[in-house]
Amino acid sequence: MTIEPQLLESFTAIVGSDGVLTGADAVPYGKDWRGRYANEALAVVFPADTQQVSAVVKLCAGNKISIVPQGGNTSLCGGSVPLAGPLPQVIINLSRMNRIRNVDATNYTMTVEAGCKLASLYDAPEQADRLFPLGLTAIAPHCEIGGNLSTNAGGINVLRYGTARNLVLGLEVVLPDGRIWNGLRSLRKDNTGYDLKQLFIGAEGTLGIITAAVLKLFPRPKSVATACIAVRDPAVAVELLAHLRANCGDTIDAFEFISRSCLDLVFKHIPDSSEPFATRHEWIVITRLADVLPAPLDAALRYALNSFGDGIVEFEVTTNKDDAERWWKLRKNIAEAQKREGLSIKHDISVPISRVAEFIEQASDSLRKAYPGVRIVAFGHMGDGNIHYNASMPDAAQNKAFIEQQETGVHHLVYEIAAKLEGSIAAEHGLGQLKREEVTHYKSELELELMRSIKNTLDPHGLMNPGKVI
Amino acid sequence: MTIEPQLLESFTAIVGSDGVLTGADAVPYGKDWRGRYANEALAVVFPADTQQVSAVVKLCAGNKISIVPQGGNTSLCGGSVPLAGPLPQVIINLSRMNRIRNVDATNYTMTVEAGCKLASLYDAPEQADRLFPLGLTAIAPHCEIGGNLSTNAGGINVLRYGTARNLVLGLEVVLPDGRIWNGLRSLRKDNTGYDLKQLFIGAEGTLGIITAAVLKLFPRPKSVATACIAVRDPAVAVELLAHLRANCGDTIDAFEFISRSCLDLVFKHIPDSSEPFATRHEWIVITRLADVLPAPLDAALRYALNSFGDGIVEFEVTTNKDDAERWWKLRKNIAEAQKREGLSIKHDISVPISRVAEFIEQASDSLRKAYPGVRIVAFGHMGDGNIHYNASMPDAAQNKAFIEQQETGVHHLVYEIAAKLEGSIAAEHGLGQLKREEVTHYKSELELELMRSIKNTLDPHGLMNPGKVI
Repeated sequence: MTIEPQLLESFTAIVGSDGVLTGADAVPYGKDWRGRYANEALAVVFPADTQQVSAVVKLCAGNKISIVPQGGNTSLCGGSVPLAGPLPQVIINLSRMNRIRNVDATNYTMTVEAGCKLASLYDAPEQADRLFPLGLTAIAPHCEIGGNLSTNAGGINVLRYGTARNLVLGLEVVLPDGRIWNGLRSLRKDNTGYDLKQLFIGAEGTLGIITAAVLKLFPRPKSVATACIAVRDPAVAVELLAHLRANCGDTIDAFEFISRSCLDLVFKHIPDSSEPFATRHEWIVITRLADVLPAPLDAALRYALNSFGDGIVEFEVTTNKDDAERWWKLRKNIAEAQKREGLSIKHDISVPISRVAEFIEQASDSLRKAYPGVRIVAFGHMGDGNIHYNASMPDAAQNKAFIEQQETGVHHLVYEIAAKLEGSIAAEHGLGQLKREEVTHYKSELELELMRSIKNTLDPHGLMNPGKVI
Repeated sequence: MTIEPQLLESFTAIVGSDGVLTGADAVPYGKDWRGRYANEALAVVFPADTQQVSAVVKLCAGNKISIVPQGGNTSLCGGSVPLAGPLPQVIINLSRMNRIRNVDATNYTMTVEAGCKLASLYDAPEQADRLFPLGLTAIAPHCEIGGNLSTNAGGINVLRYGTARNLVLGLEVVLPDGRIWNGLRSLRKDNTGYDLKQLFIGAEGTLGIITAAVLKLFPRPKSVATACIAVRDPAVAVELLAHLRANCGDTIDAFEFISRSCLDLVFKHIPDSSEPFATRHEWIVITRLADVLPAPLDAALRYALNSFGDGIVEFEVTTNKDDAERWWKLRKNIAEAQKREGLSIKHDISVPISRVAEFIEQASDSLRKAYPGVRIVAFGHMGDGNIHYNASMPDAAQNKAFIEQQETGVHHLVYEIAAKLEGSIAAEHGLGQLKREEVTHYKSELELELMRSIKNTLDPHGLMNPGKVI
């Protein structure tokens, strides 16, 4: 795929000659994070400000060229890379737009550009004694906030602070025709008509390009207590979460669930990792209380755990940072350990929290019946009803065949159970190109029609991130 | 305005003969809460379930009759009554749909029908040791949750729990063509495309009729401490809020601001109300900490107030419910006291919290210069940057002329200052018919175009609540 010299010149005139990549230089940007897709774009363009994004989009729109908005390119569903096919596509990569425009400590907000790395957004608030609470485990150093908002990212602290959507007060967006919508408000209350920003959050770049955002900040917790808890089964974990919330309130900012198979993979592949207890347990929960008040959270946590009743096998509570980090390391390295072990058939489902245990039980029973010997790696954000639920065969050769032949069947089986329990087949990773077709089986025709009509209204020529979401 | 017998018969066939009011019986439903509008509808129809709403809407759509969705009819902007004019309009009143369909204590959710009175939604969660935190001061006994969601209601506890929008996990909506969209999910995370429910929240019934919702519940606070604080000026209150959040975190669930003029009106009109301090002060703050943990919140609050530095004139902290209620009574009766005093020119503005003091200072200076002798009643939710800012003349006869002649000018002056400070002219009451024209001066043409295109997409024939919002 080669770009016409005149078009290249036009891009260069907008963003400078160091702001456009083509040919071999562009190739890496066409590959997705998980290595499933590798498609070419005419060019990768790196605008440095909102006006440049607008000009590039106008140029593309005028030339009927499709646009793939890209942040850190860490979409797990192929949402930020071109689609295969003859369609001319240009990647607009926002990484150069990486300024924190403003921190307003009194308003508890900051205004940031889309290309800011998520990991770069913690320091400035911290220096103002504020917290930005969006916490992703695996990809925080790579992902960018524009992508986080476009996918309505979740992560570890949703239980307390909500998903990315809940952290946004205002947006600046370049529309599919290149016009700039300045919705950069920093208001807690504004009921002056339709809340347009909600359309762009979670739309995966199919309705416009988010170029900047006003984000909520929070008070910084000063006291922390962490517990590692072995529970009898997932049903106990579900009830324990409800009990802890009732007793410790919104000081709980994480409640993560880990199955034995996850731990075994971590011990196998991650150096210096070890069992959290002397005894080997099947199901582990790691939970954290954090409070701005100087509260004795360890005592509160122990009291709440002791008053829970039957189902906790054993637990440990700590306020020591290193001890807590040792536990968190187990959780945070599950993705990496899985990667080293080999491929697996992955799911990112959610169900009502009250039905998580049913989901795990039914899905595991069905999978084991259908695929004897299957290894199920289940973990994740039980606090939000969001379970990462992955299947593979322990034997490498057998696993290759399993994935090649059974992926569709495994997906179907897992998704049907999630749907039956009124769940979602895409809790926090979005649809991208990976689940675009699949989701049509789980949404009503009316809902799909509404989504399509929104898409057609905002992007009548279908130029924005085609083939993603809808 | 008389309804054709055949149409009346068709409505009756759907909702029963006791489900339709016409003529004189319908008149009260055409009058708004503040007594500004009194227009007639062909009929008021009371569907008892979602299917009936759907059938009524289909009937209206088929007969090109406009629809005014109505809950408790407490809109402060004429959002829930018909517009003047020859357009045939039917009010669909949701009050019969008043069942709590489900409380899921483990999932911390409840599913409710649109016609539930807000005041009726506290008990069921409480019995399950859960909290539904939407708290409105004046109209809670009358308003209904469908209206609260359609106006994205705010109130006292937004600081901690967000506006109504943040409390919704799922919606059921009857679209303008009568089809039912079942989006009654109870998931914390669901990234499967455009978040359609966001469109209907805050749309004031112009895009469809919300018939049911899944609402978030929260742990019930067990410890409470309340403070009444006299501050030197509004700027001190702004800084104090930031300081309290930094020191007490999200245990702060209210931070209300009251000017001297409010207190004087309350003392004048509300029996058994009295000065909170022995000394008379110009600016008062009432704030509340609430925690699920058995924390010594009074000590925390005292410590935080003592460590604030200059600007607090005096304060008192209590954990006694009656003492706290005595203070809250002052705040909660401001609306009633104003009503008894007479009419005033009202504003419901918001600005970034960090600019609230600037707003009050600039608006008051300008008003006093333009209208010597004007009385300014300023109070409200400083915790969200939302100030109710009302102007009147203390002398009744003078006040009548002031309101008749100066309303437009006063609005203009106040809104211009709010806009200059990057604020909103409609923070929590919405636009309705009252501010529909006004808002066009404060939104960009692009934003209005986007809003119009959304309206045209979802309601191409313009049948839903015409003349409101847009």
